[in-house]
Amino acid sequence: MIADRALLTDLYQLTMLQGYYEQNREELAVFEFFVRKLPKSRGYMVAAGLAQVLAYLEEVQFSPDEIDWLAGTGRFKPAVLDRLEAFRFTGDVHAMPEGTVFFPHEPILRITAPLPEAQLVESRLINLLHFQTLIASKAARSVLIAPDKLLVDFGMRRAHGSEAALLAARASYLAGFGGTATVNAGMYFDIPIYGTMAHSFVQTYSRESQAFIDFAKANPDNVVLLIDTYDTEAAARKVVDLADTLHAQGIKIKGVRIDSGNLAEHAIKVRRILDQGGLQQATIFASGGIDEYKLAALIAQQAPIDGFGIGTHLDTSADAPYLDCAYKLQEYAGIARRKRSEGKATWPGRKQVYRNYDDSGFMCGDTVTVENAPCTGKPLLQRVMQGGRTVLPQPSLMESREYAKGQLSRLPEALRALSDTPDYPVIISAELQALAKSVDEQTLL
Amino acid sequence: MIADRALLTDLYQLTMLQGYYEQNREELAVFEFFVRKLPKSRGYMVAAGLAQVLAYLEEVQFSPDEIDWLAGTGRFKPAVLDRLEAFRFTGDVHAMPEGTVFFPHEPILRITAPLPEAQLVESRLINLLHFQTLIASKAARSVLIAPDKLLVDFGMRRAHGSEAALLAARASYLAGFGGTATVNAGMYFDIPIYGTMAHSFVQTYSRESQAFIDFAKANPDNVVLLIDTYDTEAAARKVVDLADTLHAQGIKIKGVRIDSGNLAEHAIKVRRILDQGGLQQATIFASGGIDEYKLAALIAQQAPIDGFGIGTHLDTSADAPYLDCAYKLQEYAGIARRKRSEGKATWPGRKQVYRNYDDSGFMCGDTVTVENAPCTGKPLLQRVMQGGRTVLPQPSLMESREYAKGQLSRLPEALRALSDTPDYPVIISAELQALAKSVDEQTLL
Repeated sequence: MIADRALLTDLYQLTMLQGYYEQNREELAVFEFFVRKLPKSRGYMVAAGLAQVLAYLEEVQFSPDEIDWLAGTGRFKPAVLDRLEAFRFTGDVHAMPEGTVFFPHEPILRITAPLPEAQLVESRLINLLHFQTLIASKAARSVLIAPDKLLVDFGMRRAHGSEAALLAARASYLAGFGGTATVNAGMYFDIPIYGTMAHSFVQTYSRESQAFIDFAKANPDNVVLLIDTYDTEAAARKVVDLADTLHAQGIKIKGVRIDSGNLAEHAIKVRRILDQGGLQQATIFASGGIDEYKLAALIAQQAPIDGFGIGTHLDTSADAPYLDCAYKLQEYAGIARRKRSEGKATWPGRKQVYRNYDDSGFMCGDTVTVENAPCTGKPLLQRVMQGGRTVLPQPSLMESREYAKGQLSRLPEALRALSDTPDYPVIISAELQALAKSVDEQTLL
Repeated sequence: MIADRALLTDLYQLTMLQGYYEQNREELAVFEFFVRKLPKSRGYMVAAGLAQVLAYLEEVQFSPDEIDWLAGTGRFKPAVLDRLEAFRFTGDVHAMPEGTVFFPHEPILRITAPLPEAQLVESRLINLLHFQTLIASKAARSVLIAPDKLLVDFGMRRAHGSEAALLAARASYLAGFGGTATVNAGMYFDIPIYGTMAHSFVQTYSRESQAFIDFAKANPDNVVLLIDTYDTEAAARKVVDLADTLHAQGIKIKGVRIDSGNLAEHAIKVRRILDQGGLQQATIFASGGIDEYKLAALIAQQAPIDGFGIGTHLDTSADAPYLDCAYKLQEYAGIARRKRSEGKATWPGRKQVYRNYDDSGFMCGDTVTVENAPCTGKPLLQRVMQGGRTVLPQPSLMESREYAKGQLSRLPEALRALSDTPDYPVIISAELQALAKSVDEQTLL
């Protein structure tokens, strides 16, 4: 499905590998992936993308055409090209399961592997974890606001390329969306697919009702009619007028979709027209520029809308289109390491995250500490890959979705707001602070 | 390179096709792609993505596994599945060349094809044109601000998936960037690639200078040393101290990179250290959270920086992560059509865009009119595909890059600002307004 090639990486990974190979710097390295800080409008994150990372690590290797191309650049020595040709990832991975709620400074994935292996995979690993985590975290906001509504990913066209479209469908489903309009995502990930008609279908007809009739006959089990091409309420009345004729042919009108204008006002009027016309069972689906903020407003207005198509704002995470995340070296050859660049310092060593819950079952505080230090709470990182092979069984997407639902149900009420959320308590343990201090003292410049 | 599958589309395209096929609605349809309005911070757009659209249209077809999967959904009739199995795009395409500067309401691409063909390709066509146009338009802002600096795309890790990384590298190069760090983009598109070392390389050593020496020996033609892992100025002095030893081995230090802190202040100090140490030729490259706004500030401060890595903000178009664009039916079966949904009305019919220039050669006003209506100026849309085959020769990426450079050089001064740009004059011709009026009068509801 996803074309993972070893050269889908930053050039510096390869020039560094040239140095590592030449100097035999191939001892075990530990890197961790974490989010440094949350975007302004976010109170929590939802981990996603691990399944694609594991598939990538199992499969990554250089194809002959990639080796030939690298050779042609003149940048790499023959001995290095030989090493790249034989490259495989043989390391271990510890990670939080997909769907885990997490917070800044908490590693959600740790790689332990010979240095060149752990280094080369950095670019694609971030690329995969960053995007799905971004989208799952955005999607969860809508899910928590409208838990009883059908939410459908409509974002393929403005997603940033094909892979973004597919993975946004996956990540939003993981976070609790009901499905996607993107057909290939349905095929690859077994996600329910939704979709009926666009304005163009109606526009090709000189009579709107004829468009509705022809669509209904062609798709008798999936009659959701788009009613805002010209005049929304007029079209709703046409739908009512057609219902008997279609019913006589065994065709039931499932619902209507509204894609423009004031959605709450139109939905109220359309609901009345449908109800008075005997179509109480027909649902109203809305789309068009919706995000969690508009969704919250529509819910607050009690707009009679049963489902929402959420597209551009979801697939681009429009109000926060990236996360400040990093994949950093924490240990090499048995010695803890730490980056100290201004504003970018990291906590060193192999870490574990422990979570505690209050008496009502809500998350109440996490501790980040060095691996194997004593700590209360539930450890969140587990080993998911050993020696380059995924530890089985890994959860299915549906299982991860259930797990995410459980996680979100234990999120403290205050963190569910769309803005101005308090900081969740994340404690850096005394052991980890002591380790950082000792690393700083030992670093020879 | 790019895995284009026919099922990379929205479900409603397929349910509409079921209606079109069943009712034999297969006459010629005309769809156009355009941007409705610019994001707040943009004054112009740069068209990009046409090459990928043409490749998609030439290749798109349903694979046997896709047909099997569709059959398994139970949504499609056998006759429709047969039609999908035989699906090919046989239409014509008119488009503005890649690199053309354009404005709202101006179609940059027109499809003329039997209705089901023109309909099915909508989702992927928007997906391709939207993203590259978004990125080329973002990249052009940095290019105009820093025409004499080396600008390199550093965004792969936070691009939205693999395709976004590859196409962002392409679109930014088209707009005038000097290259990319993404190796596969270099391989696929023949774009110059850049990259040397990350902090992790330095961190694995107990002595920073040893890391520099080992890197230089391993990559003797590409010695750009990252100097901000611990203390930027101290590292710059180490670089000076090493220069003679390396020089004696025939290795020249090309430059240093700074990735954190106050870039202007560090660059001034580092420049002084390098110059006093006899390394006047060594360049300073900067990266870390840079976008066109920070770039403008650094240029205004006359920071002695020779090149910039621009990553996350470029590849996600962070300040405007999507465009309000559409692909709309403008004509079917010889009759002009128009969508009139609230706030989303479009201009009907097949259109052409004419551009006029002032005496100094700057763009001074465009006219959007019906195709073949008399108009002054240079027509911007040309036929690029006929009967499903690309009209040759199409420009190479390098030729499109030169063309974009020429286009940007003719952009009025006022539009080059990073914010508060005036509206560029785009006139809707009397002929087009008359056509819209007559379409409205003829539409029977």
